[in-house]
Amino acid sequence: MKNFTYHNPTKIEFGKGKEKAVGGYIAADGVKKVLLTYGSERIKKDGLFDTVKASLEANGIEYIELGGIISNPVLSKVYEGIDAAKAHNVEAILSVGGGSVLDSSKAIAAGALYAGDVWDFFIGKSMITKALPVFDIITLAATGSEMNTYAVVTNEATKQKFSIASEHVYPRVSIINPDLQKSVSKEYLVYSASDVIAHSIEGYFTASYHPDIIASYIETNIATVIKTTEILLSDPENYNARAEFAWAATQALNGTTYLGVEGASYPNHMIEHSLSALYNVAHGAGLSVIMPAWMKWYVSRNEKQFERFAKNIFGKATANEGIEALEAWFDKIKTPTRLSQFVIKASEIDSIVENAYENAKAFGLAEMYTKEVLKDILNLAV
Amino acid sequence: MKNFTYHNPTKIEFGKGKEKAVGGYIAADGVKKVLLTYGSERIKKDGLFDTVKASLEANGIEYIELGGIISNPVLSKVYEGIDAAKAHNVEAILSVGGGSVLDSSKAIAAGALYAGDVWDFFIGKSMITKALPVFDIITLAATGSEMNTYAVVTNEATKQKFSIASEHVYPRVSIINPDLQKSVSKEYLVYSASDVIAHSIEGYFTASYHPDIIASYIETNIATVIKTTEILLSDPENYNARAEFAWAATQALNGTTYLGVEGASYPNHMIEHSLSALYNVAHGAGLSVIMPAWMKWYVSRNEKQFERFAKNIFGKATANEGIEALEAWFDKIKTPTRLSQFVIKASEIDSIVENAYENAKAFGLAEMYTKEVLKDILNLAV
Repeated sequence: MKNFTYHNPTKIEFGKGKEKAVGGYIAADGVKKVLLTYGSERIKKDGLFDTVKASLEANGIEYIELGGIISNPVLSKVYEGIDAAKAHNVEAILSVGGGSVLDSSKAIAAGALYAGDVWDFFIGKSMITKALPVFDIITLAATGSEMNTYAVVTNEATKQKFSIASEHVYPRVSIINPDLQKSVSKEYLVYSASDVIAHSIEGYFTASYHPDIIASYIETNIATVIKTTEILLSDPENYNARAEFAWAATQALNGTTYLGVEGASYPNHMIEHSLSALYNVAHGAGLSVIMPAWMKWYVSRNEKQFERFAKNIFGKATANEGIEALEAWFDKIKTPTRLSQFVIKASEIDSIVENAYENAKAFGLAEMYTKEVLKDILNLAV
Repeated sequence: MKNFTYHNPTKIEFGKGKEKAVGGYIAADGVKKVLLTYGSERIKKDGLFDTVKASLEANGIEYIELGGIISNPVLSKVYEGIDAAKAHNVEAILSVGGGSVLDSSKAIAAGALYAGDVWDFFIGKSMITKALPVFDIITLAATGSEMNTYAVVTNEATKQKFSIASEHVYPRVSIINPDLQKSVSKEYLVYSASDVIAHSIEGYFTASYHPDIIASYIETNIATVIKTTEILLSDPENYNARAEFAWAATQALNGTTYLGVEGASYPNHMIEHSLSALYNVAHGAGLSVIMPAWMKWYVSRNEKQFERFAKNIFGKATANEGIEALEAWFDKIKTPTRLSQFVIKASEIDSIVENAYENAKAFGLAEMYTKEVLKDILNLAV
């Protein structure tokens, strides 16, 4: 195992009704005023917004609202949040929504305490040295943002979907109530399944050394997502399935699955970010298109691990059968596996390659993922 | 899944050479003087002690030594540590050793800031509300104490082996360098394997509801311990096996394997504590005697989970075959499975029962584990 440091200070409040105490969790940190961030009006319709407001008010916490955060969240909205945070001197951010709201909130939290342009953090021009504390109620299980250091934001002007990673943006408290995730559409459920599987396989396949114990944890996360997605598609009210899905999503990207791993990279995310940035496809949908294509291209480079995957996840004998089984499973749950399902034509691949190659540079992977290679991979997704 | 709160603030520094930076980790918290606790003189012979002292000195940290902590650590030594901590106004404890040293250090950390008798915390007469920060270099992978809230100490006067559990005694930083665990004897290696398996199965079998995802993580920990113990018995220098063993030990009792679990209890520990308290047997050795006996007694109460264990750990078809396979594996690695191996006679069981029944009350399990039941279980270990 490779040397590592692990320190994940996020407090998880998991289960039914936990959101009712949100004001108390925030007040325990002495916070008196928050920026309350959210996405659609869904949370106003289903009563969550009222619950949150009541809890904040009961704990004497003022709040400034910032709604309308969209999926594949954009930099302009982050700027708006930073302006609001600064203008109102908020002491923390409370994010109520999915990964897009939370990622925007993390960027706002860092940007609010920075004199320069928050995009500096995304392009590596500056390092995050502090951030406002972030609290969240996560209403979609997918990104794992509720227990990690990451945030991904799209710069609309430059068409760059870039990320930050800083321990300063670990949420202070994350509330995961599986019941609040029941209202997620079937479409977004399967996209989320794809996202969690992508988080799981990136390191699993790309590492130059991967400890068995960590690989087994990852296989548990993948198997859990596969099993619970199937349950939830036919029985959306199944609380325990929803809960296990949510916990697998959190575990898949809270750092634990990368401990002791050597040389992992994120090529699927790297390529998918171009689809999201250029076509605004849902992240998970983009990933289920990229993954089988990337796996077919990559398999010969780490065949043993692909065989392990095939056997332990799908009970298949060969590496290729494992890839086929994953693609077939994506088809079965109806998350896309082909660019054509986004009405993207083969003739557009060149422009995707140009964008993805910029990502490859940002990911430090441009040596392996040349434009030719990116084209080969994308052609496998036609 | 049952509602839960999870917050584990311990920072893990894992890997080769990490102990060299111990002074820096402590200095980062502004600490200027520590109580340096350890057990045997082994750490002086193998150079670890010199490394630690050099790092403390390089960081301007004074230290007061408290050596001679024994396994199955005793209350009198904890008192000695508390006196030393108070007399010298130390600001933190640095534990260099295995679980016994660390558990003693946690008790000292809590006792140093308490006006009353530290034993009050063990018998539930008082609650821990604060503790000195604890840092540690863990030289034996077994108890998981390096990333949890627990400490177990024996009161020699009353023959009670009792525990505390408080978030105030989470270590601040735990250093796990698998290389430092190489000098552990084969005996203690197999006792440690037994201990980690015990931590794994207690909740797994006793819970009234156990999430699949958590059960799978536990199975990974058990399978890892079984595989790496066998490797280490024949190849003690195998770093990756040592590292995976160590990480499985940490994961097995850092709280993650109890999340969402309903109604778990610790009957094997409860009974074993009597063996340790009365006969001073090694904790892991006592556990490998108790576990098969307890499993035979308990199996009909949760047969499905025992079948799952049999299948997923040993590839066996029935619950009883799984129990037999575990007992056979303990025999194979040469950790005891019978009381007679401690030269404890059947005629002594009554006195063990008396002691264990007091534990049962302390564990809140006296209703299920009556004296008759305890006798039945112990008789299965003759």
